[in-house]
Amino acid sequence: MSIDRAALTNASVAQLREWEANLTKEYDAIKAAGLTLDLTRGKPSADQLALSDAMDGILAGNFKDEDGTDTRNYGGLDGIKSAKQLFAQMMGVGTDEILIGGNSSLTLMYQAQSLAMYWGLHGSEPWHAEVVATDKKIKFLAPVPGYDRHFGVSDHIGIELIPVAMNEHGPDMDQVEALVKADPLIKGIWCVPRFSNPSGIVYSDAVVERFAQLGKIAGKGFRIFWDNAYAVHTLDDNAPQLANLFALCKKYGTEDSVYMFGSTSKITYAGAGVAFMAASPANLKEFQKHLGQGQIGPDKVNQLRHVKFLKSVDGIHALMRKHAELLKPRFDAVLTRLEALKGLGEWTVPQGGYFISFDTIPGLAKTVVKLAAEAGVKFTPAGATFPYGKDPLDCNIRFAPSFPKIAEIEKGTDVFVTCVKLASVRQELAKRG
Amino acid sequence: MSIDRAALTNASVAQLREWEANLTKEYDAIKAAGLTLDLTRGKPSADQLALSDAMDGILAGNFKDEDGTDTRNYGGLDGIKSAKQLFAQMMGVGTDEILIGGNSSLTLMYQAQSLAMYWGLHGSEPWHAEVVATDKKIKFLAPVPGYDRHFGVSDHIGIELIPVAMNEHGPDMDQVEALVKADPLIKGIWCVPRFSNPSGIVYSDAVVERFAQLGKIAGKGFRIFWDNAYAVHTLDDNAPQLANLFALCKKYGTEDSVYMFGSTSKITYAGAGVAFMAASPANLKEFQKHLGQGQIGPDKVNQLRHVKFLKSVDGIHALMRKHAELLKPRFDAVLTRLEALKGLGEWTVPQGGYFISFDTIPGLAKTVVKLAAEAGVKFTPAGATFPYGKDPLDCNIRFAPSFPKIAEIEKGTDVFVTCVKLASVRQELAKRG
Repeated sequence: MSIDRAALTNASVAQLREWEANLTKEYDAIKAAGLTLDLTRGKPSADQLALSDAMDGILAGNFKDEDGTDTRNYGGLDGIKSAKQLFAQMMGVGTDEILIGGNSSLTLMYQAQSLAMYWGLHGSEPWHAEVVATDKKIKFLAPVPGYDRHFGVSDHIGIELIPVAMNEHGPDMDQVEALVKADPLIKGIWCVPRFSNPSGIVYSDAVVERFAQLGKIAGKGFRIFWDNAYAVHTLDDNAPQLANLFALCKKYGTEDSVYMFGSTSKITYAGAGVAFMAASPANLKEFQKHLGQGQIGPDKVNQLRHVKFLKSVDGIHALMRKHAELLKPRFDAVLTRLEALKGLGEWTVPQGGYFISFDTIPGLAKTVVKLAAEAGVKFTPAGATFPYGKDPLDCNIRFAPSFPKIAEIEKGTDVFVTCVKLASVRQELAKRG
Repeated sequence: MSIDRAALTNASVAQLREWEANLTKEYDAIKAAGLTLDLTRGKPSADQLALSDAMDGILAGNFKDEDGTDTRNYGGLDGIKSAKQLFAQMMGVGTDEILIGGNSSLTLMYQAQSLAMYWGLHGSEPWHAEVVATDKKIKFLAPVPGYDRHFGVSDHIGIELIPVAMNEHGPDMDQVEALVKADPLIKGIWCVPRFSNPSGIVYSDAVVERFAQLGKIAGKGFRIFWDNAYAVHTLDDNAPQLANLFALCKKYGTEDSVYMFGSTSKITYAGAGVAFMAASPANLKEFQKHLGQGQIGPDKVNQLRHVKFLKSVDGIHALMRKHAELLKPRFDAVLTRLEALKGLGEWTVPQGGYFISFDTIPGLAKTVVKLAAEAGVKFTPAGATFPYGKDPLDCNIRFAPSFPKIAEIEKGTDVFVTCVKLASVRQELAKRG
C-alpha cells in the first residue's frame, strides 16, 4: 500500500488500524523468514577487492623506489618519493606538501589531533595549555550527520563536539563562521567534503572558498580536518568536482589552517591500503618531529606496490570506474525501493561515496533500526551519525549498500520499507491516543 | 704497536709522545683517504632482506585466512588467527594472549605507554592521575646501556627515566627491586631480555624469575616492557635461551604486570614486517578498547603473507640460520680486529642480536666517536645508549655491523682501533700535564 505523510494525517483511526494490522502481518512474515542481512559497514565487496589482487607479486623482485630507496629496509618517516608524487597529484598538492603513512588515515587523524592537543603544532602551543588556562574543554565542530569514527577520535582525546547543520552545499557556513569567531577554544572542524559520509553531498565551491578563509577569523592553532576519503569515488561520470581547498588557502595565506587526509582503503584494499596527509611543509615538519618518537616509519613495500599497481592518477580513475560498475547497481537497488517511501521520508541520491542517508519522520529512526534488527536486517545504530550518538530529531539512518550482494540489498531495503511504514503508522496511531 | 692500560701508565712522557706522533700520522693518513662508512644503524643488509623476497606474490590469489577472514577487507583489531597462532608459539604464550599489530613494535610500545599514562590500563587509574595528585613525574627504569628509541618513547610521553646498571646476567635486580619498592611512581622498566641492545647479553633464569615477582612489590599499574626484539636472532646454535617470563608470572600471579613485544622486522623486512604484543587477556582487552579509537585495524594481508612464508616456528628458525650465516662473518670482522685493543677497552662477544658494545677507558667515548667521524666512519653518537644521551663514564660505544659489507666493516673497525689508541694516549699525555 502507498502511504505518505498527508495520507497518514488524514486517515481515520480505523484506516490507520487496518494499515497497522496489514503491515504487522507483513513484518511478522519477514521475521519468520529468519534473515541475517547487514547494511551497517561502508566496506567494499569481495568483487571490488579482487580488482586489486594483482598487487600481490607486482614487485617481481624489485623492491627499490625510483630514487634507489630499498623499501624493505628501515628509513624515512614520510613515505617513498614515487608514492608522494602519485598521491600529491591525486590530492592536488605539491610533493613537499604530503606525507605517506601506514594503512589508516584515521590513525593519521588521531595522531594529528592528539599531537596538537598535548605536544603542540606549528605556530602555537598545545591546545591543552588553553584547557589548563581556562578550565574549559577544547571544541571541534561536527557537521551533522557525519562520520562516527571522526567523533570518536575527538571524544577519546577529550575534545568536545559541537554539531553544526549540513545542507546540500556543505556545512552551514554562517553558523560555522559565527561559532568560530565567537569561541577561540573551537580548534577545528571535521569535514568529508566530497560525497560526505553519510549524506553523499559535495561541498560547493562557495563553501570551500569560505573554508579557506576560516583560518583568518579562528583562534590560534585552528585546523580544518579535511578527510577527503572519497576524493575519486564517483558513481557516475557527471559527479560534481570538489574545489581545491589547499590552493584556495594559499590565496588567502591560510595554508597552515588545514590538514587534508586521504587513503586507498576504498581504492585498493580496505585495511591494507596506503593513507596520506597533505599539509603545509611547516605543518608536516612539526607533525613528523613528534611522529618519529612513536614509530620507525610506514610500510614502504606496500607503498611501492600501490605505485606500481595504480601507476598514475589516470590509472586510479580507471580503477574507480570499475568500482563504480560494481557499486552503482547496489545503490540503485536501494534507491528504486525507497521510492515506495515517498512522503514518509527523505533521502539523498549520491553521485559517489559509500552511503545513502535516509531521514524518517522525526522520532522514528531508533524504532525503525530496532524493528529492522529484530527482523534480521542490521543498520548502523540510529544516532551514530551524530556526536555522542544523539540525533536531536531521531530521524537519520545510514544505508551502506556496498558490501552485500544485490539480492540481499533488495531484500534488506524491502524490509526497511516495511519497517518505516509500520513505525510511521504506529506513531500516528499513538498520537491519536 | 700494542698498547694496554698498564703500558700507558708505565710509559714515559717521551714514549707517549712518540706513540702519539705515530698514531696521529696513521690517523691523518686514514683521514686523507676520504672514507664514508656507516656503522650506526642496526639494520639488515640487502642480502638478509632478499631472504624474504618470496613473500611478494606468495598469496597467489588467496587472501583468506584459515578461518575464512578476507584479509583484504576491514575488520579485526588484534590480527588474524593464523598469525596469532604462529607468533604466540614463538613468544611462548597462548593465542588469547597475543595481539598482532602493524609494522612496528615501537608503535605498540608507544601506544601502550601513552594509553597507560592518559587513559588508564586494566586494574588501575591512568598514571597521569598520580602526576596530578603528587605533582611529580611518573618514572621508568632504564637498564643501561640500552636502546635509545625506548628512552625516546618515555621521554616524549613525559616519563622520567632512571638508569639502572646492567651486568652479564641482566639488570642489577637488587637495585631494581630496591627502587621499585621505594617509589610507587616507578611504573615500569624497559627490557631487551635476549641479546640486549647494545650489550648482547641474555637475562639469566634467576633474573627473569625475579622479574616475574616485581609486580608483587611494585605500585599500582606497574608494567614491565619486555621487548623481545631478538627473540630468535641467534648467531650460533649454542646461544643461551631466555626463560619464559609470562609462564613465570603465572606462577606468581603477576601476569598483568608484563607487556611483551616482538616483531619480524629483523626476520623478514625492516619496516614492512609484522609486530606483536603479548599480555594477559585482561590487559589486551583494555588496550584494544583504546586502540580502536585511533585506528581501523592492522594490515591483515601482510600478516597472511608472513604466515604463508614463515609457515611455523621451525620455519622461522631455519630462516634465522640463514641470517646468521650472513651476520656471523660481520661480527667476526669486528671482534677479530678489536683484539688489538686488549687492555684499552672491554667489549661484548654476543651470541645473537645486532650489536657489539664497546667500553673505552672512562672519558673517551665522545672523543673516539668524534675522531672516527672526522675520519669518515660514523658510529652511533656516544651516550645514545643512556637516557638523555648522558653516559656518566663517557665510555660506551655501540657497533652495528649488520648493514655494511665485510670489507667496509674491516676498514671501519681498523679506523676505530686507531682512534681508541690515539684518544687513550692523548688522555694519558694530558694527565701528565
